[in-house]
Amino acid sequence: MDQTPFPEIPHRHEAFADGLLLDCGIRIAPLAIAYRTYGTLNAARTNAVLVCHALTGDQYVAEPHPLTGKPAWWGTLVGPGKPVDTDRYFVICSNVLGGCMGSTGPRSERTPGGSDAWGIEFPPITVQDMVRAQKKLVDSLQITRLFAVVGGSMGGMQVLAWASMFPDAVFAAVPVATAPYHSAQNIAFHEVGRQAIFADPDFHDGFYASHGVIPARGLAVARMTAHITYLSEAALTRKFGRRLQGGNAKTPVLFGERFAVESYLEHQGSSFVRRFDANSYLCITRAMDFFDLAADHGGSLATAFRGSKTRFLLVSFSSDWLFPTAESRAMARALNQAAANVSFVEIVSDKGHDAFLLDEPDFHRTVAGFLTGAAEAAGLS
Amino acid sequence: MDQTPFPEIPHRHEAFADGLLLDCGIRIAPLAIAYRTYGTLNAARTNAVLVCHALTGDQYVAEPHPLTGKPAWWGTLVGPGKPVDTDRYFVICSNVLGGCMGSTGPRSERTPGGSDAWGIEFPPITVQDMVRAQKKLVDSLQITRLFAVVGGSMGGMQVLAWASMFPDAVFAAVPVATAPYHSAQNIAFHEVGRQAIFADPDFHDGFYASHGVIPARGLAVARMTAHITYLSEAALTRKFGRRLQGGNAKTPVLFGERFAVESYLEHQGSSFVRRFDANSYLCITRAMDFFDLAADHGGSLATAFRGSKTRFLLVSFSSDWLFPTAESRAMARALNQAAANVSFVEIVSDKGHDAFLLDEPDFHRTVAGFLTGAAEAAGLS
Repeated sequence: MDQTPFPEIPHRHEAFADGLLLDCGIRIAPLAIAYRTYGTLNAARTNAVLVCHALTGDQYVAEPHPLTGKPAWWGTLVGPGKPVDTDRYFVICSNVLGGCMGSTGPRSERTPGGSDAWGIEFPPITVQDMVRAQKKLVDSLQITRLFAVVGGSMGGMQVLAWASMFPDAVFAAVPVATAPYHSAQNIAFHEVGRQAIFADPDFHDGFYASHGVIPARGLAVARMTAHITYLSEAALTRKFGRRLQGGNAKTPVLFGERFAVESYLEHQGSSFVRRFDANSYLCITRAMDFFDLAADHGGSLATAFRGSKTRFLLVSFSSDWLFPTAESRAMARALNQAAANVSFVEIVSDKGHDAFLLDEPDFHRTVAGFLTGAAEAAGLS
Repeated sequence: MDQTPFPEIPHRHEAFADGLLLDCGIRIAPLAIAYRTYGTLNAARTNAVLVCHALTGDQYVAEPHPLTGKPAWWGTLVGPGKPVDTDRYFVICSNVLGGCMGSTGPRSERTPGGSDAWGIEFPPITVQDMVRAQKKLVDSLQITRLFAVVGGSMGGMQVLAWASMFPDAVFAAVPVATAPYHSAQNIAFHEVGRQAIFADPDFHDGFYASHGVIPARGLAVARMTAHITYLSEAALTRKFGRRLQGGNAKTPVLFGERFAVESYLEHQGSSFVRRFDANSYLCITRAMDFFDLAADHGGSLATAFRGSKTRFLLVSFSSDWLFPTAESRAMARALNQAAANVSFVEIVSDKGHDAFLLDEPDFHRTVAGFLTGAAEAAGLS
């Protein structure tokens, strides 16, 4: 496995000298938020759509990734003529706080101009902290109300946090393939990944940067585990089944032939470590684990959205076992209790959690229709 | 994590000087099979029940484990007055070929009397090889026909292999929570565990014994991953939910509080490495991955059981996502096509795959009823 730390990339970012006061009580300053925009902000500054990315996503929602060269991660949904139409809306996507693509995170300097990065000592953050950082960016763009906030998986958690924390700043909210809390099973899968990282001798208790290495093998195992949870059994069976392919020099001779699904996972793991920082992975998975919107509102999810004027579209996918439909349905019920304006759609798909990123015409039609309706209501047409 | 290799235990075993010719073409000799028996073999030698254990199980099916002191692993099903009634049947349970509780496996000497263990160079084995080794044991006990062969998970794969390879030697077969092949998703989870073991610096390419260490951290991560798949989301939620518990010195300060589910998984991992050998784990998971009964019979599962006189009871559990009901149902269809005598029962339970080991009265009543009927048909009553 490649042990070379991944290269620095140039990025566009907004720096906030006053920093951000985190939920844990620590203020980090300055705060940098790396972001990309697509389309044109209208004169009234009312057509902005904020897209929130998932655990290992980044700001390159509608353009190729500068490190991997891979296509836009949500090119199926966001772009000219797409459901989130950049000919019509001004799309903003920022790298989350705690990330490793330019926003303040474990790889940032601990003190301005210093050479010492936070690393493992980056303060614990919450999904709400991520949203507060985004709010500073949105404010700096002089946008007082976002037309829509859209995101899947952890991006969906951010959408829910946005609607709950800043209801007047969110006209429409589209939380996709997500939940208002992380389940015990999901925490368990995250923990396995973290333990794999901790077990890597190159982790050096989180201070791997000062040793000039990265915990590539542990991070790869974490990614492989997570990747299985992003797919459905049906998708794995359709894509790979029990097909064998040639051996691999890295595998002990004992095992000789390999299954195609194994090579695929190994590729997922080894390519991931070239673009993602292990301490960011630890930091962000932990933020997800601690996300529990109802607990933050006296145990009532409805309370989190009481009096909300935001229009919600909740979307789940039938074969998603990481964020099952039942959790979206419970959210829809809570929003109904809060007398919010809510639509809930379960898309029938056998592609698992990853379906939200893939070619799912029903999903795309649903989002397009919802946004068109909301745009009319917002007087955008 | 404890790095001490686990202690040797005394065991009762049968040694076969002629050894066993494996599916891979290699003969291993001698062959040792460690086993336990419970109850009394009748004069006609017709009341024997062979219990086949799962991936990390062993021969201590109906008595406390000599290393861990934990209760019998299938004490809910096997014992005096239990569904597999040791007052009535002569129960045999052997450690599988490739295991680490006394049967020939990676920890065995490569040459008789030598001090050099096979380790990672133990030949690849199949589920069918495991069954052939058991057949030698059963033959040596002068039992020509087993009244029943019973097993769950990988034990169920062995039951299917028994019924397919030695139909005249199996009067009744009870494959539980199993499938006639390992799915792509299950192979993927196994591969993640193996990669975690490979990534442990104490693995030493499989030659850890000569370094006086064990790959404890990697093996623990493998166990943790597997353990999640043995439970259901509902079971994890009921047992742990999002409950927090105290911090842990081994966890970086960053994460402070821990979820109860994390401590539970860590305990599962650390206790496992004290009783199980990493090379055995690699060897046995690989045997499971390559199990595909239909592929071995021209793609037809029905062909594997054509003309079988064996009475089958197939049992699945509704919340088992590792070996879902659909796979048992497909097996039942194939057995019907083969004109076999087959009953299929799905037990409603929210306990996941592990349900087969737990207190599930409907399951136990089903097995007891089936065996009682079979015993009458076999003239045992």
